[in-house]
Amino acid sequence: MTTPETLRERARELDDADPLAFVRDRFDLPDGVIYLDGNSLGAMPRCVPDDVARVVREQWGRDLIASWNSHDWWGAQERVGEKVARLVGAAPGQVLVSDSTSVNLFKCYVAAARLRPGRRLVVSDPDVFPTDQYVLEGVARLMGLEIVHSRPGEVAALLAERGADVALVSLSHVDYRTGDLWDMHGITRAAHDAGALMLWDLCHSAGAVDVRLDECEVDLAVGCGYKYLNGGPGAPAFVYVASRHLAGFDQPLTGWNGHARPFAMEETYEATAGIGRARVGTPPMLSMLALESALTAYDGLTMAQVRARSLSLTGFFIDCLDALCPDLEVVTPREESRRGSQVAVRHEQAYGVVQALIARGVIGDFRVPDVVRLGFAPLYLTHADVLASAEHLRAVMDAKEYADERYATRHTVT
Amino acid sequence: MTTPETLRERARELDDADPLAFVRDRFDLPDGVIYLDGNSLGAMPRCVPDDVARVVREQWGRDLIASWNSHDWWGAQERVGEKVARLVGAAPGQVLVSDSTSVNLFKCYVAAARLRPGRRLVVSDPDVFPTDQYVLEGVARLMGLEIVHSRPGEVAALLAERGADVALVSLSHVDYRTGDLWDMHGITRAAHDAGALMLWDLCHSAGAVDVRLDECEVDLAVGCGYKYLNGGPGAPAFVYVASRHLAGFDQPLTGWNGHARPFAMEETYEATAGIGRARVGTPPMLSMLALESALTAYDGLTMAQVRARSLSLTGFFIDCLDALCPDLEVVTPREESRRGSQVAVRHEQAYGVVQALIARGVIGDFRVPDVVRLGFAPLYLTHADVLASAEHLRAVMDAKEYADERYATRHTVT
Repeated sequence: MTTPETLRERARELDDADPLAFVRDRFDLPDGVIYLDGNSLGAMPRCVPDDVARVVREQWGRDLIASWNSHDWWGAQERVGEKVARLVGAAPGQVLVSDSTSVNLFKCYVAAARLRPGRRLVVSDPDVFPTDQYVLEGVARLMGLEIVHSRPGEVAALLAERGADVALVSLSHVDYRTGDLWDMHGITRAAHDAGALMLWDLCHSAGAVDVRLDECEVDLAVGCGYKYLNGGPGAPAFVYVASRHLAGFDQPLTGWNGHARPFAMEETYEATAGIGRARVGTPPMLSMLALESALTAYDGLTMAQVRARSLSLTGFFIDCLDALCPDLEVVTPREESRRGSQVAVRHEQAYGVVQALIARGVIGDFRVPDVVRLGFAPLYLTHADVLASAEHLRAVMDAKEYADERYATRHTVT
Repeated sequence: MTTPETLRERARELDDADPLAFVRDRFDLPDGVIYLDGNSLGAMPRCVPDDVARVVREQWGRDLIASWNSHDWWGAQERVGEKVARLVGAAPGQVLVSDSTSVNLFKCYVAAARLRPGRRLVVSDPDVFPTDQYVLEGVARLMGLEIVHSRPGEVAALLAERGADVALVSLSHVDYRTGDLWDMHGITRAAHDAGALMLWDLCHSAGAVDVRLDECEVDLAVGCGYKYLNGGPGAPAFVYVASRHLAGFDQPLTGWNGHARPFAMEETYEATAGIGRARVGTPPMLSMLALESALTAYDGLTMAQVRARSLSLTGFFIDCLDALCPDLEVVTPREESRRGSQVAVRHEQAYGVVQALIARGVIGDFRVPDVVRLGFAPLYLTHADVLASAEHLRAVMDAKEYADERYATRHTVT
């Protein structure tokens, strides 16, 4: 039988044997906090403050406009894109860091519809993070498309029936609420079998899951720079366009940064060759270069190693819950191949549970209507953190701390 | 007759009598440089490095996700928007800081076409900074609009003829090459007389010209955070929507940040009330808060004062050119009411002239095909700088420094 003592023993063993334990030191974490919200805003890598200060004081402050050439600000979107590419299984030339996830979705939806003229359906998961859905509404209205809802597990059946009219299947790789990891390879193949394109939103997998975009023959992908990639608040997002689609990637945000000859100041837009055509306007360089600095936290690590550590953390947390909190329903799949890097627990007073945990220094977040979402960023948490979190959760349940009247009114932002 | 000595005398007098001379100290400028490119990338206000460092280390690093509430990151787009609003003559509730100028143009073009259904023409200046034109091409294609070219001075005549079909007139307030300042009041009225909407791109006027959006009854405007506003490289841009249009401002980039209830995670998009509906995705907070910090350089100043100083600098520069470089053609209007905050000079080897000036520590920029563009940022230049720049230009011409073979190949970024 699992006792608190055997859990402590196991946490020690797992941490002692952990090949990536040294990576935690690459982060500057506040004292007294167990941070289980790296899937909302990643923690700060230790190198970022000095790197950002250098960009501000030395590049902007001293070299001024010349920095666009001398510090290659102009090439940053592609350069940082390559650093992300390595983490999502993309060969060079296919990933650009640019704008926000929402804006990148917009580019991809329009471009996908243009790559599949005559097909007017787009398949989307009704339980996806809402921006994917909202942006798709905006595009559907502009282009006369129709949105068809399907949970990821039912996409294959839907395609079998209506696939000939489907231009694009757009799904999130990891469900932001439940932590379900969907079958990128199988669903992408089903989309292709129907002649449709496949877009994956990697916001909740990039940097935590061993994503293999090229290997799965994904067509388009987007993702976020500020969650597991730790790029800082609102860090620029990224967009992936498979090289076979680059020549036909015809996106509508035709800003001057994406022009073939931006400084020729020509009257008519002509998209540059390659992934640079996803560029729009001048990117926010301080945020962009903070992300570049932050990505060095992945230096020398393979995503297979990172994924193994993520599974070890979430798996151990589920074991701790089984032992300490058998009364709580774990929403996240127990099967490793179906689990992202978070564990979601259902509770009627989920908001209160999250607030009570925060009061104890365990930072997770709440997702409507009833989900306690705990993210296990694979670079900076330990198995000891995992056990301590479960113990705090037990204490919150025992003392019904979630029922505190301070938690009667919700206000939360992520 | 004007001699070098009388010019020096006059520069001293103007600087001594300058009521805004103290503002230069709010900036951290490199030694040995006269920076005439603040219309491309504004110089760094002295407060920014420490403010950014605090955001990085204390807000992100220590308070992590809680910062969205505790430091009101969530409200930053509107809050910084209000600080810009004061500088462009906009009452509260109409300006949002968001995305890039190009993305904001996209929102406005689509929304304008929807506000004027049945009208399919958009008037645009063929000599405008190209992104306005390129983005409009993208929107025209999506919405079946037609672009009609007209120089600003000929818009009224065009509207008299075809105005009934015009949905929107889109112009730049200041021509990025020549420095021409267009008649915001008169052209806006002409657009309205035709039943069309008016959009002004303020990239080259915000922060230097006394822009009066409300007073001129402008409908829509966009502008850049990194030129005269000094927000840092690629600082987020801003968008203005006149309050009478807010309820009908139906923009297509319907990301979750613009939803009426973003945390309810509803399935369907519903735009929030007010200028927040121009929001799209999560904004790049480091760049956003650098801009907020930078805007304090305008604290206590009125735009009338700033404009007076700008005109004094550019006017004195034109006087210096007349005296020292009568062989050079000044492209920028001499009439104050028609002049932005730059002086452009035409020269066959303009690229070489700019490079030779840079070698002498006078940073300006080149614009195709033959323009030497010298921007006079009104907050940190002195009349002594102005005279010294003209003297350097004279020396470049005398020694034909522009013909140096190093300048035979162009590479320039702005």
